[in-house]
Amino acid sequence: MRHTKVKDLLNSTTTLAEVNTKGWVRTFRNNQFIALNDGSTINNIQCVVDFENTPDETLKKITTGAAISVTGSLVESKGAGQKYEIKVSELEILGDSDAEKFPMQPKKHSLEFLRENAHLRVRTNAFGAIMRVRSVLSFAVHSYFQQKGFVYVNTPIITGADAEGAGEMFQVTSLPLDNLPKNEDGNIDYKKDFFGKHTNLTVSGQLEGETFAMALGQIYTFGPTFRAENSNTSRHLAEFWMIEPEVAFNDLNDNMDLAEDFIRYVIKYALDHCADDLKFLESRLLEEEKSKPQAERSEMTLLEKLNFVLENNFKRISYTEAIDILRNSTPNKKKKFQYSIDEWGADLQSEHERYLVEKHFKCPVILFDYPAKIKAFYMRLNEDGKTVRAMDILFPGIGEIVGGSQREERFEVLVEKMKALGISEEELWWYLDTRRFGSAVHSGFGLGFERLVLFVTGMTNIRDVIPFPRTPMNAEF
Amino acid sequence: MRHTKVKDLLNSTTTLAEVNTKGWVRTFRNNQFIALNDGSTINNIQCVVDFENTPDETLKKITTGAAISVTGSLVESKGAGQKYEIKVSELEILGDSDAEKFPMQPKKHSLEFLRENAHLRVRTNAFGAIMRVRSVLSFAVHSYFQQKGFVYVNTPIITGADAEGAGEMFQVTSLPLDNLPKNEDGNIDYKKDFFGKHTNLTVSGQLEGETFAMALGQIYTFGPTFRAENSNTSRHLAEFWMIEPEVAFNDLNDNMDLAEDFIRYVIKYALDHCADDLKFLESRLLEEEKSKPQAERSEMTLLEKLNFVLENNFKRISYTEAIDILRNSTPNKKKKFQYSIDEWGADLQSEHERYLVEKHFKCPVILFDYPAKIKAFYMRLNEDGKTVRAMDILFPGIGEIVGGSQREERFEVLVEKMKALGISEEELWWYLDTRRFGSAVHSGFGLGFERLVLFVTGMTNIRDVIPFPRTPMNAEF
Repeated sequence: MRHTKVKDLLNSTTTLAEVNTKGWVRTFRNNQFIALNDGSTINNIQCVVDFENTPDETLKKITTGAAISVTGSLVESKGAGQKYEIKVSELEILGDSDAEKFPMQPKKHSLEFLRENAHLRVRTNAFGAIMRVRSVLSFAVHSYFQQKGFVYVNTPIITGADAEGAGEMFQVTSLPLDNLPKNEDGNIDYKKDFFGKHTNLTVSGQLEGETFAMALGQIYTFGPTFRAENSNTSRHLAEFWMIEPEVAFNDLNDNMDLAEDFIRYVIKYALDHCADDLKFLESRLLEEEKSKPQAERSEMTLLEKLNFVLENNFKRISYTEAIDILRNSTPNKKKKFQYSIDEWGADLQSEHERYLVEKHFKCPVILFDYPAKIKAFYMRLNEDGKTVRAMDILFPGIGEIVGGSQREERFEVLVEKMKALGISEEELWWYLDTRRFGSAVHSGFGLGFERLVLFVTGMTNIRDVIPFPRTPMNAEF
Repeated sequence: MRHTKVKDLLNSTTTLAEVNTKGWVRTFRNNQFIALNDGSTINNIQCVVDFENTPDETLKKITTGAAISVTGSLVESKGAGQKYEIKVSELEILGDSDAEKFPMQPKKHSLEFLRENAHLRVRTNAFGAIMRVRSVLSFAVHSYFQQKGFVYVNTPIITGADAEGAGEMFQVTSLPLDNLPKNEDGNIDYKKDFFGKHTNLTVSGQLEGETFAMALGQIYTFGPTFRAENSNTSRHLAEFWMIEPEVAFNDLNDNMDLAEDFIRYVIKYALDHCADDLKFLESRLLEEEKSKPQAERSEMTLLEKLNFVLENNFKRISYTEAIDILRNSTPNKKKKFQYSIDEWGADLQSEHERYLVEKHFKCPVILFDYPAKIKAFYMRLNEDGKTVRAMDILFPGIGEIVGGSQREERFEVLVEKMKALGISEEELWWYLDTRRFGSAVHSGFGLGFERLVLFVTGMTNIRDVIPFPRTPMNAEF
């Protein structure tokens, strides 16, 4: 007979005379009670074995991690905690699991140990929940944009453009490194490389995305991006997934409205579709924080925090207002900031962002109109000649989750800016074409997907919300 | 006032006293009729200008490619071909477009010319339609799997594994190629590379996907994959998007059922959601085929072909049966095949696949149970000891669109196979763990997304169904 998923059995509205299900043993108690999980839900189904009529040889193989097939009747459970259980009539060991060797023992493992076993950690409650929430959030992203008529665009991963300017790049090559071809000048002959030129992994699909927005109106990307930066922090990955919408005719206010509406939608979607997983992750977080001093514990539980974002508008303030607040803040006056804020024009550090979000406003904050000098070349210059129409969205515990801007749509202003920064007009001829032919006001932003998953799952290290993290010195699996 | 999208105006159920819309001029006739497009639909809205009361300076700037904002009333159109048009009261040029310089003239351009202008070709009817269909197909992929409870998994793009075995790989490095660090032996010191080892771009997420399927039950990937192969054909890209579902407890028959059901769902979804775009692409194809001799034209129109796939089961035959058919086929007997089919065990070439699909069966074909020798190490060995539980799905005009298999779940058999092929057990320790701990029957397949888009759009060159194609000697943009 066809097997039924554990989730469907647990959601059954009636007892059933005969069912079959397959999954992995989480625990086996008293030679009688199997907690069986198949990944369809965080919840296990209890399978009650008739141990007196089951061969010892089989019982011995019902160990944590073993794959089994169970046939029996779905009956009301006498035990607490579940409505139904399976009264087992037939049990088959599909694949055993040596209890002494299986790394995922039914006990608490350190997150570091689990990272080293990224191929198996997904068999734990926490990582099963995280990966299901991640998947549902991905779908929420697509659902939001598709409903609104945005076109999903796969911008290139391998890029010939060096000028994206968002960070250090990885080189991509098919040349043999131990026997590099040289040209007459003695330099590496990239004409012999696969693409006939020097190529890198993309750091952003924005520039290509803009060319599509200027034809299709509303587009979004959602794909991997890369940074070859030696940042060994809990907030950075060398390979991460980014969402980049770009909308023709949107100004910066429209852009902020879009970002806020989008973030609320995906969080609401997760709350609606991942209730069991989020409840588990909430209790996990409470448990984890018990070991922390009271002052460092979260003021809100995970679900309270997610609902808070749904119910409260993000605070929008200009960079200039933020500098005033920071300059007059207690930590600045008492010299508690590592980088003290003295002048307009200073780049904000993580400590300043956290102060604004976590201490001053106690809610997500959108900062806008940054000094031109600390932002990218493509951002629209304001009439004041010194600020640009940039915006960053800052989240409690996460820091920057969104960075965006209204783009400079004026050809001459853009070219002048590129010249001043030494960015090659020849290399970006195609980008400039969007301003040569039918240019218009447009805006967009980038959202680091893993930071969103961090926020929604309540995890604290970004390596724990992506299946196989890529960080300095680590590309295992 | 807030602007309204062209699609929404054309779908209006009533005339409207005042509307504003923004978009790009496709054509301007008689100093009076603007065909305006904003990418929300393939259809233009006609905007009727009161040229007697519009300054010459403005009229001159209403050229193909210009971005404009139009305010006026939505009235019933007297002309043929549209229900509504805008009677313009106010017109603003947002960004002009020099009629002599704008590359996308209102005339037929060669596909090759359009490829060189991939950043602008999306402003044409055909490429607007293709990119919208591609986007809708992407969403159909996610919708199908999410509805069925599959978990979306982002397998790594940068991989330390050399053994995926699906093709030539690109190297990823942060080492300075003009000053490579060497170790004591004089070899390149990869310990100094970003990840502390030699890394490549992934050719498949299958192996990592399997580890997740053995925990979450049903998973799928949908992300970019790479081949550093010098294949300058109309069917190959160096960078393409692949969909790879993997399902625990599925055997090869379940796998074939899943693939067939999945393909039908996404094609149906496109038919339901892209009617206007597909109608246009159908007429484009008819037009294109007019220049071909009768014998080379398609027997069915695009929509007939798509509906045929919905309404007819794929023909399933074993490799052995296929060899019999091919051996006895007229082209084989008349030595018309470049590679004649003499013996069981021969690898099938494109010409053989096309014969089976396009001449013999005239429908999609699933071939299964291939000789072990011509297939990958991870495919399950049949009891006959010489064939494996592999399957390929072949489509008319496209060739192989899906390749999949039931995986070898038996630890000893898998290890023996790896040894015979010289695949390092140490490197794939984590993959082998899935067979060490709770192994079970499981299956999956890979579908090249661009080949699906080719089939659905009726295009013939794969470079025309991805925004910015990456091929040998070409990584522009």
